[in-house]
Amino acid sequence: MVLVIWDFIILFEDYLAAIIVKIAINRLLIQNIKDSPLYLIVNPRSIAFFGASNRFTSMGTNQLNSLKSLGFGGEIYPIHPKEEQVQNLVAYKSVLDLPEVPDLAVMVLPTQVVSQALEECGKKGIKHVIVVSGGFKEVGKEGVLLEEKLTELAQRYGIRFLGPNCLGVANPHHQYNITFLPFVGQAGIIGMASQSGSFITQMFDYLADLNLGFSTGISVGNEADIDIVDAMEYLGACPNTKVIALYIETIRRGRAFIEMARSILPQKPIVALYVGGSEAGKRASLSHTGALAGPDNLYDGVFRQSGVIRAHSITELFDFCWLLGSCPWPTGNNVVVQTHSGGPGASAADACDRAGLALPPFSPQTLENLSTFVPHTGSVSNPVDLTFTKNPLEYFDNIPKILLEEPNADMLLIYFMTPKENVIRALKGMGICEDQIDELTEKLFEDQAKAIAALKKNNAKPIVGFSFHNRQNPMLQKLQHYNIPVLPSPDRAARALAALVSYGRLRETILQPNI
Amino acid sequence: MVLVIWDFIILFEDYLAAIIVKIAINRLLIQNIKDSPLYLIVNPRSIAFFGASNRFTSMGTNQLNSLKSLGFGGEIYPIHPKEEQVQNLVAYKSVLDLPEVPDLAVMVLPTQVVSQALEECGKKGIKHVIVVSGGFKEVGKEGVLLEEKLTELAQRYGIRFLGPNCLGVANPHHQYNITFLPFVGQAGIIGMASQSGSFITQMFDYLADLNLGFSTGISVGNEADIDIVDAMEYLGACPNTKVIALYIETIRRGRAFIEMARSILPQKPIVALYVGGSEAGKRASLSHTGALAGPDNLYDGVFRQSGVIRAHSITELFDFCWLLGSCPWPTGNNVVVQTHSGGPGASAADACDRAGLALPPFSPQTLENLSTFVPHTGSVSNPVDLTFTKNPLEYFDNIPKILLEEPNADMLLIYFMTPKENVIRALKGMGICEDQIDELTEKLFEDQAKAIAALKKNNAKPIVGFSFHNRQNPMLQKLQHYNIPVLPSPDRAARALAALVSYGRLRETILQPNI
Repeated sequence: MVLVIWDFIILFEDYLAAIIVKIAINRLLIQNIKDSPLYLIVNPRSIAFFGASNRFTSMGTNQLNSLKSLGFGGEIYPIHPKEEQVQNLVAYKSVLDLPEVPDLAVMVLPTQVVSQALEECGKKGIKHVIVVSGGFKEVGKEGVLLEEKLTELAQRYGIRFLGPNCLGVANPHHQYNITFLPFVGQAGIIGMASQSGSFITQMFDYLADLNLGFSTGISVGNEADIDIVDAMEYLGACPNTKVIALYIETIRRGRAFIEMARSILPQKPIVALYVGGSEAGKRASLSHTGALAGPDNLYDGVFRQSGVIRAHSITELFDFCWLLGSCPWPTGNNVVVQTHSGGPGASAADACDRAGLALPPFSPQTLENLSTFVPHTGSVSNPVDLTFTKNPLEYFDNIPKILLEEPNADMLLIYFMTPKENVIRALKGMGICEDQIDELTEKLFEDQAKAIAALKKNNAKPIVGFSFHNRQNPMLQKLQHYNIPVLPSPDRAARALAALVSYGRLRETILQPNI
Repeated sequence: MVLVIWDFIILFEDYLAAIIVKIAINRLLIQNIKDSPLYLIVNPRSIAFFGASNRFTSMGTNQLNSLKSLGFGGEIYPIHPKEEQVQNLVAYKSVLDLPEVPDLAVMVLPTQVVSQALEECGKKGIKHVIVVSGGFKEVGKEGVLLEEKLTELAQRYGIRFLGPNCLGVANPHHQYNITFLPFVGQAGIIGMASQSGSFITQMFDYLADLNLGFSTGISVGNEADIDIVDAMEYLGACPNTKVIALYIETIRRGRAFIEMARSILPQKPIVALYVGGSEAGKRASLSHTGALAGPDNLYDGVFRQSGVIRAHSITELFDFCWLLGSCPWPTGNNVVVQTHSGGPGASAADACDRAGLALPPFSPQTLENLSTFVPHTGSVSNPVDLTFTKNPLEYFDNIPKILLEEPNADMLLIYFMTPKENVIRALKGMGICEDQIDELTEKLFEDQAKAIAALKKNNAKPIVGFSFHNRQNPMLQKLQHYNIPVLPSPDRAARALAALVSYGRLRETILQPNI
């Protein structure tokens, strides 16, 4: 551990001398994703499953059922000492009895029997294992010894393994999820490597709510063999992954982390959340995955040197991934805020300022173009506060179009508020019947969302929304359907836009041919 | 304006010399809420309504319909130059024709005719008016003159008025809402005075989602007559208000603000959001309500001197109110975090640390009491990471009970994650039929939420949850039903707990008899 810390400090001092613009881009990435030790762990065609039973409350049973319920297409071989069948699948007494050598073994076993099971896998010729079982390094001295034994055994048989003390992998593109909770939502673009399994499995519904999803989620656990750097390498090469999310309690290979991040950087943004910097966070990490966390500013330096965007909460982690994975990357920090309400506009302006973004004044051409659309109670400065528009659709087409043409603007942030009840009431008042009202409001929101989507398609500037409505709001659902990110507050939107600018600038610098 | 700023600076220097512990508590509060100029504006029994018509898209019509749809029990008299009926109510050509002198007149009129309408109200003897119309000070020089004329007229006729350029008032306890959007949710405990009407009317569904609601929401607009200090006085005396929320773009009467806040402090917490501190926020405020904002640190000083808890976003504003209105107020900053997942635990620890809260180690008694409940894979340090519990109910009764008894702890923060799908799957696997499954899961969540509610009832320490589930989650709905605040992230929970501690300490200091 001392060595690791030194590794960091040396690199951190490098960093102070050589600013990030000068970083060399290494060509570390594997040529073929199948060369990754994680390939068959993330994309297995057949699985030996240890630790599931016919008792529904056990962890292993739940994990097996997560796999079954997502419609995994490969073979599953439950290994059970007594049962003939496990969860309606033919069970085997020993892995040695299996009719083939499966790509992967998954172990959700009591700590004391993991080594024996691993040895049997080795004898069978299985080369990839996920050890879900806990009770190793994270519980102290005795566990450290058990974990060392595991590593020795794996090396002896040429096995690469994930864990122990992990929750496994979810790869919804492969109909594959062996984590505790059933997968919900859709396969997405966020590739995540996490030192907390919870932040894979317990985020399925959270991400689905935002119309997001994992391309692949990897819970790395205690990292006795495969670690977060290996996971980054895999995700860097993974064609479904557009942005990489990391949840970090410690980095065990400092130099390798930085080099790996640098090699991924030109292709994909990486966002990291590190929680070990505080005293309380450090203690929690130690008992969680046996991780020895380092000082916060050290990690800050490592992330900056690596070109990794740092998030400070789980919320930020996914917000940053959301925008980085769905928007163009601007290099300037000028935002135009469009609103029809003063308070949300002023709050957004304030939030942008605190996030390091600027609200530029408009050019004469923009002022002229806007003048026909803004009533006398509105404001043509930035934020553009329309108060109201005669034709509601203008808010979604003509006005944002003008704002996107503003040469001083790099991004557009729009406030969305849907007076759905008022629209329905107006239609009722006009004597329109219920069925038609549903149809008309549906069409109204569809037209509005489509107008924004059309602007997004024809524009190289990010268009991001914010709204205080919940995710059941029909307008937000339409916008999400068209892949327009709408964040739940101006503050979250501003911080995520700032992350977008950070990556845009970083990437531009890196890709400059003369560096 | 220069005078106002000076007023602040003088008070701010006072503050530097005399720290907050020494503040004298003034007895400014009105003896009777009916003495407030806002009383009949917030609780009218009869209303003359200018500016509604039979055109459903107009602002005034929407506001009238908001009032009607909440079931307002008093008389409504639409004033319209041509129509016999407006929205199925008998309309009057002039306010002078009304059969009585209504308690209140509401004006949603074009700017140029407001003065004339106000004069007619004066002649009729109406003493309270809400001027919704914009186009006054917020649009510049010409508007300033119009607003001055309004004030002169009001003074001549002894009229007190709210606005102009405001969205009115919502008092759901009185079935009264004249803001643009129909009221949704329930009457609650948050009394809000806001320099943005949007943050009243556009927050109805946001608050309802969190099982919160306004006791009264007052949009103060340009504050030509009644201002935010008057609104604070009203809310301080309002029996339905447990906590006061302020959205501020400028404070026009600095000294009065501080004195009013100090006088309310011992009875009720006050939380304020100020957005005028940044350059962009300042510009937005000016065009919004004609407000001249001051430097951020000046306002920071004013809030600290006033004993007002400062929020930095709308999200924080309502989060702080949520906890301040529903939890006991601790005076110590020690938190125990209870979790069954390492990552959420470590994130919560980190978030608490950044919010200035501490996670104390446990006393020997707590360690002993916990030992029977924590499996060997779990952790008995703080955060308590249970990984799992043999009996799921223990997570909701025995374990938090022990943690609340810890003498070093002032608050308990619990992570809630409901593996609803797994429970259903287990029940299905046991051969239980669909109807019974619904009933059993319903009962399970009810029992769990009830157990936490029982702890809350018998305990003087705050119990707060966090969860990444959305508000449709059945467990969160149960907990919200029992008034247990569950915040959507550990960070938001930690910051709100810190606000709770701030107020607890402030209050303790103030109420010390020897000061």
